Amino acid sequence: MERYDIGIIGTGPAGLSAALTAKIRNKNILLLGRKNLSEKVEKAHTVQNYLGLPNYSGAEMVKVFQQQLNIMNIVITEDKATAIYNMGDYFEIQTAANAMYETTSIILAAGMTVTHFFAGEKQFLGRGVSYCATCDAPLYKGKVVAIIADNAAEESEVDFMAEIAAKVYYFPLYQGNIHVSSSVIVVHEKPVGIIGTPKVSQLQTENTTYDVDGIFILRESVAPDQLVPGLTTEGGYVAVNRQMETVMKGCFACGDITGRPYQYSKAAGEGNVAALSAVSYLDRNRHK
Amino acid sequence: MERYDIGIIGTGPAGLSAALTAKIRNKNILLLGRKNLSEKVEKAHTVQNYLGLPNYSGAEMVKVFQQQLNIMNIVITEDKATAIYNMGDYFEIQTAANAMYETTSIILAAGMTVTHFFAGEKQFLGRGVSYCATCDAPLYKGKVVAIIADNAAEESEVDFMAEIAAKVYYFPLYQGNIHVSSSVIVVHEKPVGIIGTPKVSQLQTENTTYDVDGIFILRESVAPDQLVPGLTTEGGYVAVNRQMETVMKGCFACGDITGRPYQYSKAAGEGNVAALSAVSYLDRNRHK
Repeated sequence: MERYDIGIIGTGPAGLSAALTAKIRNKNILLLGRKNLSEKVEKAHTVQNYLGLPNYSGAEMVKVFQQQLNIMNIVITEDKATAIYNMGDYFEIQTAANAMYETTSIILAAGMTVTHFFAGEKQFLGRGVSYCATCDAPLYKGKVVAIIADNAAEESEVDFMAEIAAKVYYFPLYQGNIHVSSSVIVVHEKPVGIIGTPKVSQLQTENTTYDVDGIFILRESVAPDQLVPGLTTEGGYVAVNRQMETVMKGCFACGDITGRPYQYSKAAGEGNVAALSAVSYLDRNRHK
Repeated sequence: MERYDIGIIGTGPAGLSAALTAKIRNKNILLLGRKNLSEKVEKAHTVQNYLGLPNYSGAEMVKVFQQQLNIMNIVITEDKATAIYNMGDYFEIQTAANAMYETTSIILAAGMTVTHFFAGEKQFLGRGVSYCATCDAPLYKGKVVAIIADNAAEESEVDFMAEIAAKVYYFPLYQGNIHVSSSVIVVHEKPVGIIGTPKVSQLQTENTTYDVDGIFILRESVAPDQLVPGLTTEGGYVAVNRQMETVMKGCFACGDITGRPYQYSKAAGEGNVAALSAVSYLDRNRHK
C-alpha cells in the first residue's frame, strides 16, 4: 500500500493552509475532505478580518482557495476519516467510504469538536449507536434505523441506508431543503436521548419516541479522542503546544479542533505551523 | 492625553491582522509602523503558501493589505517604538520621533528579534552606544559618531545626524544603493566590536578600527526585553502562551517576535488571536 508522508484531515482553512505548506516542502500528502472545502466557510457571510481578503464572502473565499489548490496541484480525496490508528511508525486511516490509507504523519484539521452528545450516545456506542453508515449499514438489513445528521453532505449516506434497511427515519439538524429518497421518513423533531437494554431500542425526541434497531449519528466532525484513540484532549479540544504537536508523536492538530477562537486566520496560521512541524518530524525520522 | 485601547507595535502581517480584528471589535487602536507596511514583506519574492493569495509577490501583498486597511479605516502612525513602559493599568510608549503615547494594552508585532549583538554592545549601552539617533543626537554635537543600520529606512536618521555631528561614519548592513548626505563617510566593512574605557572610544571592524565618540546601532527591531523592560524572553523571543499572552498583564505578542517559523500565515493567525485576547483583557478590566 502506498504510504503518504502526511495525512491531512479536513479541508477548512487549517487543513488547506497545512496542505499548501506541505506541498511546497515536496511532501506526498493525502488531503481528506470535501470538494466544496467547508460547508461552514461556504455559508459564511462577509469575513472582515482575514488579512489579504477584504470583505470576502465565504463563497468567494472558497472560490479563491480552490483556485489556489489548482495552481499548486493539490487534490482533495473526497472522503471522511472515521478512525485513525497509531501503528507505531505510521498511522492507519479508515474512512466513511470504507477505504484504508497509511500515512507517516497526521495533521488533524477536522474543525470544531463535538461539545454536545445525546443522552445515552456514549453508553450505546457499538451497541446500536454508530458513527459510520457505510461501515455498519449491512448490520441493519431489513431493520429499522434512525439517522441524525448535522449537515446535508450526509444525505447520500441516508439514501444508501434506505436501500438496505426496512425503514429509515431521518432527523436533519441543519437548515435548508432535504433531498433524500422518498422512502425515507424525514422527521423534524429534536432528538434528546437514546433508550435500550442492553442494546438500542428507542430514539427519544422532544415530542415522542421512535422504535429503532440502530441509530446513526453523522456529524461533520467527531470528538477527536474518538477519531484518534490515545489523543489527549482539554475541554473537548485536542491538546497541542505552540508547535501544534499533540501528545502523540507524528500527530499534529490545527484550527478549531485545537480550541477557540474559531477564526479563519488563526486556523490558517496554525495549519502552516502544523505542516512545518510535520515536515521536520518526517525529516528527523528519515535520518534515523 | 488620549489613551488608546490597544497599541499595536509593527505593521507586518501580525500587526495588520491584529489591527483588523481590534478594529472590528470597535477598539481605539494606535498602529505604529510604516506606510509601506513592512520592508521584509515588500521585498519578498512570490509567496506560495499564504492561503487566499496564490503566488502573490511581496509587493502585491502589501498592496492588497493597504487596500484592506483603507476599507477598514485603519490608519498607520508612521513612527517606531523605542521603549514601552508598564505603568500598572496602562502602558507608555516612547517613539523614535520623540512622541509619547498611552495605551491600556499592547500588542507586540515588531518582527524578528535581534539574535546577534556586537561585542561590547550591551556593556556600552548608555555609555556611548545608543539605539535612537533622534533621541541622543544632541549629545554628539561637533563629535565623531558611527552609525550601523540593518535597513535603508534609517538613512534619514543618518542624514539628521550628519547635520549635528562633526563626522559620521555609516556602516550599512543591507544590500542595495546607499542614499545619504555627501558629508557622510560610507564604510563597507563589517563591524565586529566596540572598545573603550569607561566610555566608547573605538569601533572595530574586520579590517581596522575607527576612533568615535558614539555608536548608533539602528535595527529594524530591537530585542523585545529591551523594548519592554520586564518582559520574559526565551531564546531571544517573547515568551507567550497559545492565547498570545506574555508574562505581563495587558501585553500580548504575535508574529516573528514570538519565534519560528517566520511565516506570514503564522504571523497573521497569531495577530488575530492576540487581538481577541487584548479585547477580552479590556472587557474584563472595564467591568472591574
